[in-house]
Amino acid sequence: MVHALAKHIIVEFYNCNPQIIGDVVLIQQHVEGAITFSTSSIEESFFQPTPENGANGTVITADIRVSIHTWPSHSYAAVDIFTPSNTIDPWLAYDYLKERLEAQYDSATELRRGQIKVGQGSPFQRSFL
Amino acid sequence: MVHALAKHIIVEFYNCNPQIIGDVVLIQQHVEGAITFSTSSIEESFFQPTPENGANGTVITADIRVSIHTWPSHSYAAVDIFTPSNTIDPWLAYDYLKERLEAQYDSATELRRGQIKVGQGSPFQRSFL
Repeated sequence: MVHALAKHIIVEFYNCNPQIIGDVVLIQQHVEGAITFSTSSIEESFFQPTPENGANGTVITADIRVSIHTWPSHSYAAVDIFTPSNTIDPWLAYDYLKERLEAQYDSATELRRGQIKVGQGSPFQRSFL
Repeated sequence: MVHALAKHIIVEFYNCNPQIIGDVVLIQQHVEGAITFSTSSIEESFFQPTPENGANGTVITADIRVSIHTWPSHSYAAVDIFTPSNTIDPWLAYDYLKERLEAQYDSATELRRGQIKVGQGSPFQRSFL
């Protein structure tokens, strides 16, 4: 039996609102807002402007991490949502950000990170699932 | 003509040394060490222990971001290396970490994030490349 230790959603948000994704303070608010469904409190939240007038930042809690890098001149934002928890749904963060960034289209891929064999006779006895 | 705004390497390190990847202080040192080739200084470096006795953290500079989440009981580490720069090689961070974590095997995938059309007649006139 194979379980994944973590889920990771890789998102390309296209045709975002350039004014929104060019505002570092707003982006930080939105990314923090995107993980309020997580029961863990925010351990770290760091955002900075980029040389391209975009925003670059990461929010970390015990059970979810969201990173973003934006390019307002291309109306594009790269977002990564990573969770080692099997009790929270990372797609809630995706939905939230898609709406707040006003992305008109996007590409999103979910990866299963750390596919580990578990169960009787396996050397791996511990798993999140 | 199509250029990528950023490169992203997704790495699965297997059969790492559990003692190394279970040591949060050491992991922070290694991840910070992995990006010393970047000419930018570290803007943020945040690491914390996980409930599974692993390490969870991110280091951010203006031109590279490295995130890690480790599971010592599975000898596994999930690493993400993201760079908006076209002048630095993110694979240097991969090489460095593979050696320091003593990963016996791994899987690494490079993604081109934000594939943008550039050139004459394109609505997108700005690019990193």
